Amino acid sequence: MKENKYDNPSFFEQYGKMSRSQNGLDGAGEWYVFREMLPDFKEKTVLDLGCGYGWHCRYAAEQGAASVVGIDISERMLQKATEINQMAEIKYERLALEDAQFPFDIFDVVLSSLTIHYMKSYDVLTRKIYTWLRPGGKFIFSVEHPIFTAEGSQDWVYDAQGNRSHWAVDRYFYEGPRDTSFLGEKVLKYHRTFDTYLNTLLKQGFRILEVKEPMPNDIMLQNVPGMEDELRRPMMLLISVEK
Amino acid sequence: MKENKYDNPSFFEQYGKMSRSQNGLDGAGEWYVFREMLPDFKEKTVLDLGCGYGWHCRYAAEQGAASVVGIDISERMLQKATEINQMAEIKYERLALEDAQFPFDIFDVVLSSLTIHYMKSYDVLTRKIYTWLRPGGKFIFSVEHPIFTAEGSQDWVYDAQGNRSHWAVDRYFYEGPRDTSFLGEKVLKYHRTFDTYLNTLLKQGFRILEVKEPMPNDIMLQNVPGMEDELRRPMMLLISVEK
Repeated sequence: MKENKYDNPSFFEQYGKMSRSQNGLDGAGEWYVFREMLPDFKEKTVLDLGCGYGWHCRYAAEQGAASVVGIDISERMLQKATEINQMAEIKYERLALEDAQFPFDIFDVVLSSLTIHYMKSYDVLTRKIYTWLRPGGKFIFSVEHPIFTAEGSQDWVYDAQGNRSHWAVDRYFYEGPRDTSFLGEKVLKYHRTFDTYLNTLLKQGFRILEVKEPMPNDIMLQNVPGMEDELRRPMMLLISVEK
Repeated sequence: MKENKYDNPSFFEQYGKMSRSQNGLDGAGEWYVFREMLPDFKEKTVLDLGCGYGWHCRYAAEQGAASVVGIDISERMLQKATEINQMAEIKYERLALEDAQFPFDIFDVVLSSLTIHYMKSYDVLTRKIYTWLRPGGKFIFSVEHPIFTAEGSQDWVYDAQGNRSHWAVDRYFYEGPRDTSFLGEKVLKYHRTFDTYLNTLLKQGFRILEVKEPMPNDIMLQNVPGMEDELRRPMMLLISVEK
């Protein structure tokens, strides 16, 4: 099943109000970590899987990429990307990740930001990415963290006074779909273990370069109310690997 | 601080009643996964950090290791190892991991089973291990899983009827000591994130070979009451890396 929640008008509208939509990369809490994991883009050929508004495509192009392909299943996302993040080097294409086909050995960098937890098949996708990358090419991606996705409700456990008591983990080894709530809508996501995220890449032949669990930096902790709760459980997992 | 809980007589007695103590490697639920991560031991020089009863030392020797050094801080553990798992190739030595010193490039394999979460300094230890290993040498170890160690109580959250409701995660990014209960005693363990476990190794120069989260196999699920709860959260993390 190819989830295309972002073409639902009310969901898309809600998404548009998020800091990461309105303020681009600097509005995304994990960006300061993700950015450090990205390679030099100069003269590189780049693919962005699930490009959304196109902020990462634009960043790659501004950093000197020779060409950038951004794919996304959502027409509304790509309309927005074309409006606000179009550059001569960037080509946006409406395509589900599941349907993506590219020749062997043509990309230097494959990116994906918070998209792969919507995908049913991680194994098939990573195998394809391996073929699309040139030797030495890099794949850098972010997903919701296995601790964040395991139980499925994606909310804190509250005590009798309504305070956040802790985060619940359950069903960890039962990989697969989770009916979650996001921006007031039901959204289907897929839970995978750490073991699966990493060993699937290793088995394809990738070399692991970095595995990061971003936490808020001091500026965020000082300026965003409630941000200290983000130190209580990881929300995202960032991985970079090399072919 | 060098924790030597296993020389506490009542704790040692309780430990002696565990399946992994009485039945050796086959009594340890994670062994069937750990074993597959071990390299060929033939003619290899091996170091076991926190060797306990010596089951892994004996296994390495039986698989053809040229020499095996097992170190442990506990005198009682080493007495037992000498009684039940002594072989000509094995040398047991009473030594805290923190105090271990070996020449550069002398081991082909360094093992450690469920010991490193007792260590305050992971960074220093892994740096030393890197120097002790020959190029191409392997370091394979198990620790309690970050999900298991984060909150600190190391017990389930129960509902009003006394059933296991879920596992609590909290304080994830607050790495450091946790006062836990184990075998009826207070035991000091150290929580670390996934990020720290993996990136510390990568920064030392290790290459990650495998990252496993063992779950019970079908035989255990059928024969051990309550074992299905072990599918609800991971308890252990197994990592193998190469210099």
